Amino acid sequence: MASPAPLLVIGGHEDRRDNMEVLRRFVELAGGPEASIAVLTAASSVPERVWDGYRQTFAALGAANCRHIHTPDRAAAEDGALAETVAAADGIFLTGGDQKRLLGSLGGTALERAIHQARAARGACLAGTSAGASAMSALMLAEGQAELRPEKGAISLGAGFALLQGVVIDQHFSERRRLARLLSVVAQNPQLLGIGIDEDTALLISPGESVEVLGEGAVTVLDGHAMSCNIADIGHRSTPEMLGVVLHLLPAGSRHDVDGAPAPLQPLMRVLAGGGSGRL
Amino acid sequence: MASPAPLLVIGGHEDRRDNMEVLRRFVELAGGPEASIAVLTAASSVPERVWDGYRQTFAALGAANCRHIHTPDRAAAEDGALAETVAAADGIFLTGGDQKRLLGSLGGTALERAIHQARAARGACLAGTSAGASAMSALMLAEGQAELRPEKGAISLGAGFALLQGVVIDQHFSERRRLARLLSVVAQNPQLLGIGIDEDTALLISPGESVEVLGEGAVTVLDGHAMSCNIADIGHRSTPEMLGVVLHLLPAGSRHDVDGAPAPLQPLMRVLAGGGSGRL
Repeated sequence: MASPAPLLVIGGHEDRRDNMEVLRRFVELAGGPEASIAVLTAASSVPERVWDGYRQTFAALGAANCRHIHTPDRAAAEDGALAETVAAADGIFLTGGDQKRLLGSLGGTALERAIHQARAARGACLAGTSAGASAMSALMLAEGQAELRPEKGAISLGAGFALLQGVVIDQHFSERRRLARLLSVVAQNPQLLGIGIDEDTALLISPGESVEVLGEGAVTVLDGHAMSCNIADIGHRSTPEMLGVVLHLLPAGSRHDVDGAPAPLQPLMRVLAGGGSGRL
Repeated sequence: MASPAPLLVIGGHEDRRDNMEVLRRFVELAGGPEASIAVLTAASSVPERVWDGYRQTFAALGAANCRHIHTPDRAAAEDGALAETVAAADGIFLTGGDQKRLLGSLGGTALERAIHQARAARGACLAGTSAGASAMSALMLAEGQAELRPEKGAISLGAGFALLQGVVIDQHFSERRRLARLLSVVAQNPQLLGIGIDEDTALLISPGESVEVLGEGAVTVLDGHAMSCNIADIGHRSTPEMLGVVLHLLPAGSRHDVDGAPAPLQPLMRVLAGGGSGRL
């Protein structure tokens, strides 16, 4: 059994021209220049173009051993040879696109099982950006307009890859003004922590160890565990009253260890980084 | 001594064509059609135009006894007759514009004293919209870009009319995406509650009694009393880490009495509506 596999949850539009901090860290976590990296483009409607971009970026970062895992349909996602490649990878990268397309292609297939296998058996690092980030949780933010205010019925969840439990992830968070949308998630699902990740920003989760923010922006966390909310009593598309939502803002550079995290952050640390709880 | 005077804090762009819920309530609180209403346009660079608009609106609401308090300079704001008109008013309305212009014209003048006098001695209702809302607090949000993320040094406070203590008010809140700006205020001033009011929305504060939200949008409250924040240790224009900010969302229709308010809301109720603490 390898050491617990890190997850790199990226808010989209990660830098691919300058310092490339986020993707550079992914390559390091995968094991460096020799790492075998599988790039899954199933979220995208233009997978070849997306692959071509990442191939060049990873090459520029010294990682030449990259494979495009191309799955035009669910049959391809059951392909044994492709699944073996993923299961044997040191790093797995889920590109952006549409998380519903991604789960529609890979959900429940041999390829999805290969992702879990690579992590569990080999400690492979899994990174996902934009749609690939949203897809990491068990309950995934599938749809929802970014309204001005939270609204009942404004969002819908779907089944994700279940690499993270107890959270919902949103991306392009500050740039696309998605706070109200994430509040809508929490209003309807107070047992889930809402995690909003800015562009060119990543949440690095090292199970049992630490949580760290990389890149340029910030990660916003909404914790509704202790709130009171009247959502059961209001009409469709009405704005709920929400009292006592706890908000954390973690800018790039924030890093907290599971042991000794500040008190307000402990629920987040427990959910994200476990500490042997097996929730990851 | 009249009953404690209500404050109507309006987020700007209140409806003046259809139901006019917010301004209709102001006229009621001032005493109805017979009320003498003083309209202070000192925040505006086009005071005559602003007055003309409100004159028509209040007339449409049946309140014909309105006076324009026109103060082109500080000398005018020391005018005894104008101040007497304000001190004798049943309702006082502060229009929008620029809160720095408003305080620059009226701060510390006979007219400002007349506002306090009308409230204390006659229980006159004071309403302010947009800049007129921001100006109500003792420490007023004077300047600050609405950045994507909170930043150290992004906002500056100035002296307001001190009708409310312990809060900073922002307006056009959801529409102009001002959450990050209000978080900047709280990061630098954790002893102040941040209150963000949406357009066509008002917070009605009845001291010792209740707090109520009117109109179409919502009021967002940020409470940083218990947060941990590293703002002292970061550079100018850096984004602080903020852990444990408490957020409340109060949509139109929310109403809470000072006695019996839900626990998460009690700090807000104490600060806003006192209960005889004399903080208003």
